[in-house]
Amino acid sequence: MSRPAIHVSGDVARAVETGAPVVALESTIFTHGLPRPRNLAVALEAEELIRAAGAVPATIGVYDGVPTVGLTAEQIAVLSDTDDIDKASLRDLPVVAALGRHGGTTVAATAYLANRAGVRVFATGGLGGVHRGASETFDESADLTTLAGTPITIISAGVKSILDIGATLERFETLNIPVIGYGTRRYPGFYVSDSGYELHYSVNSPEEAAKIISSRDALGLRQAVLLANPVEESRQLPPDVLDDVLRRAWAEADRQGIGGNAATPFLLDFIQRDTGGRSLEVNVDVYRGNAALAAKVATALSAESDRDQA
Amino acid sequence: MSRPAIHVSGDVARAVETGAPVVALESTIFTHGLPRPRNLAVALEAEELIRAAGAVPATIGVYDGVPTVGLTAEQIAVLSDTDDIDKASLRDLPVVAALGRHGGTTVAATAYLANRAGVRVFATGGLGGVHRGASETFDESADLTTLAGTPITIISAGVKSILDIGATLERFETLNIPVIGYGTRRYPGFYVSDSGYELHYSVNSPEEAAKIISSRDALGLRQAVLLANPVEESRQLPPDVLDDVLRRAWAEADRQGIGGNAATPFLLDFIQRDTGGRSLEVNVDVYRGNAALAAKVATALSAESDRDQA
Amino acid sequence: MSRPAIHVSGDVARAVETGAPVVALESTIFTHGLPRPRNLAVALEAEELIRAAGAVPATIGVYDGVPTVGLTAEQIAVLSDTDDIDKASLRDLPVVAALGRHGGTTVAATAYLANRAGVRVFATGGLGGVHRGASETFDESADLTTLAGTPITIISAGVKSILDIGATLERFETLNIPVIGYGTRRYPGFYVSDSGYELHYSVNSPEEAAKIISSRDALGLRQAVLLANPVEESRQLPPDVLDDVLRRAWAEADRQGIGGNAATPFLLDFIQRDTGGRSLEVNVDVYRGNAALAAKVATALSAESDRDQA
Ligand SMILES: [Mn+2]
Ligand SMILES: [Mn+2]
Ligand SMILES: [Mn+2]
Repeated sequence: MSRPAIHVSGDVARAVETGAPVVALESTIFTHGLPRPRNLAVALEAEELIRAAGAVPATIGVYDGVPTVGLTAEQIAVLSDTDDIDKASLRDLPVVAALGRHGGTTVAATAYLANRAGVRVFATGGLGGVHRGASETFDESADLTTLAGTPITIISAGVKSILDIGATLERFETLNIPVIGYGTRRYPGFYVSDSGYELHYSVNSPEEAAKIISSRDALGLRQAVLLANPVEESRQLPPDVLDDVLRRAWAEADRQGIGGNAATPFLLDFIQRDTGGRSLEVNVDVYRGNAALAAKVATALSAESDRDQA
Repeated sequence: MSRPAIHVSGDVARAVETGAPVVALESTIFTHGLPRPRNLAVALEAEELIRAAGAVPATIGVYDGVPTVGLTAEQIAVLSDTDDIDKASLRDLPVVAALGRHGGTTVAATAYLANRAGVRVFATGGLGGVHRGASETFDESADLTTLAGTPITIISAGVKSILDIGATLERFETLNIPVIGYGTRRYPGFYVSDSGYELHYSVNSPEEAAKIISSRDALGLRQAVLLANPVEESRQLPPDVLDDVLRRAWAEADRQGIGGNAATPFLLDFIQRDTGGRSLEVNVDVYRGNAALAAKVATALSAESDRDQA
Repeated sequence: MSRPAIHVSGDVARAVETGAPVVALESTIFTHGLPRPRNLAVALEAEELIRAAGAVPATIGVYDGVPTVGLTAEQIAVLSDTDDIDKASLRDLPVVAALGRHGGTTVAATAYLANRAGVRVFATGGLGGVHRGASETFDESADLTTLAGTPITIISAGVKSILDIGATLERFETLNIPVIGYGTRRYPGFYVSDSGYELHYSVNSPEEAAKIISSRDALGLRQAVLLANPVEESRQLPPDVLDDVLRRAWAEADRQGIGGNAATPFLLDFIQRDTGGRSLEVNVDVYRGNAALAAKVATALSAESDRDQA
């Protein structure tokens, strides 16, 4: 090919080469997850947060058919404002690339591209997982499979309770993907700090997390490390509010006969409208918290690698 | 070992080395899928079709314990005529090889061997998938898992509706396996041109397909690309005929207590007898169509690689 | 890192380098599976059995945060006697290592570490698999996934019937993991010589097994070969005794509301107490038989490799 398959920006390439801290960010959060014009503001703010913490942000997406690690602010603005932009999971990348289209990259596609570019830490909102009813439909996110073979670290706030959280945690176990609570042994549920499920392990500092990540790498393991970073209890969606809206959202989806891939956007939209935008604010808070923690973990990891080489 | 684990014929090895178009063909279609003597005729005709289109056929099977890429016409004739020949999926290959037996290779085993030999395109009839009732039995074809780690291109006419097509499509998604319609956005159902399921992407020429495949390779992705090539509507098994015979076939299997691995051959045999051989003619038509398209895709891919290297 | 991620003892390293026969042994059998002080005696006896057969034992576990291939007798004694020691599956290894703890390694973690150290044969008691009710809970052992990517040979006595044996065998098939009976075509059920399920293939000598293993390696396949070695019929738990105790064990677990990860130890403990220790004796017999056969297979494999290089 006359051009390389993946474009890595100069800033990101330099940081990776010198071992400076870099944090990958996904693009579906601003191409598909948040309403305009909030989406662009949140995307740029996350980059600023990371820069302020001394790390290099690497927002990832497909621009004009080019999978790009380190989109410019202009490119982010264009993708934020493109109607009917493709949602590109890992298997869509070659298609979107061949067709020369724009695409927002999912957790799976972003993790893959970040890892190819040498970026070791990735901040996202929530992860994909096993969908409710998956024992019949077999609907399980490609995030699961991809993370089983992508040695990166992902800071998320757990999985949304529109998914089957118990089944998702079992899949993580079966796929050898470690899940570590940050400052907690309760698995967070994205909108809420505690999903009701327990974790085996927790860490209390970026340095502790960095040690586990280095150990994963030294052992030659290829699975992502998941760092579960709950939203602060004072800023969560009150659990009873969430339970209630979820119940009504599913009932309405049932009534309208909405299922399969259409269910997730329908449910999230219902929750957002029904909570008068409160769920949106939690979403933004969660994302900020993950970006900030990711910058610290990337910094600790960078320091740890320096020590190892000294 | 005194002899190499895989034998690649001179013709195939030369074509692979020079970047000439090659098309892999499986052997279970003539060792287990079609009745004698039609099986041999169909196997040799597929090779002829591919040669006539300017590509090199590489029929794959295990001959006398040797996994072979590029069986001779004589070897194909022997395998076609061997009673109780092993059906070799990927995990059976080392056993059949160690025991020095003949074996017809499934989609999984054929794809693996083709890829090891450097063959990039493979024409088959239908693919394996998730079996009906798999949420209880866990019966899922090894084709799924194997294709998730085998960067080849497979031209098929979808999966037979004796399987759970919806669940199979979900597994493809979870495993990051792209499924692209050829001239259609309806997923074909082997005997019928439209299984009732929609696809996200389609291409309209071998060149478009080749671009996606090259992009997959350039991105370092290891998943097979599935090109779904429907039988022509005028030559399909009429959908109402298929629905009716399937209903009766399952009822009869139930009545006779036939399940598990025995169900598939029973159902296919029932369908063939019940349709007075019409299903067999569709099967042969499907296979011809896939072989012909595969030769074109292999040719386009070969041209694309030449351009990249120029 | 100042120290290597995995410590391989001098004895084991030398044996691996010279191609002498080595047999890996897991540690959860003595850290979590058997009661004290029997656990230590059984662990050391297995090593003796292997030495007596002319092979080098490599007991594997995590000692003071160091994943170790070839624990000393003193280290085995310490791990056998540590309260609340971590049960380390593959995903736990980096955590247990980073925290500097002791850990008993499961089949998955042991197989991985053995393979990294170049050890080709591993004797265990029973394997993990698909749990009963997994179609709802998604509870499937990480052993399955790990063995699909770890080219080692495991000698076991099948899976315990507290699991869903049929579903486990289907997963082996889907994951391309060959299962070969030793002297039988009936899949053993750990406590009983015949689980009621049939196998496609069997071998009758260590040399036949070694041929299949070499063939797997020559073909570049990455799946473990499972050699299923039944307990002698005269020493099994009588099938009707097992059926009866299982039925009551499940009823009691139900009554006490015990499920999930807590179910397995509860059921095994119930079986042991209820059979007055008979199940424990079968467990020990099974383990002895597997260690002895593993030594023979490792020796045959070592001889086979010598021939190949000659
Ligand atoms: Mn899905
Ligand atoms: Mn099957
Ligand atoms: Mn489990």
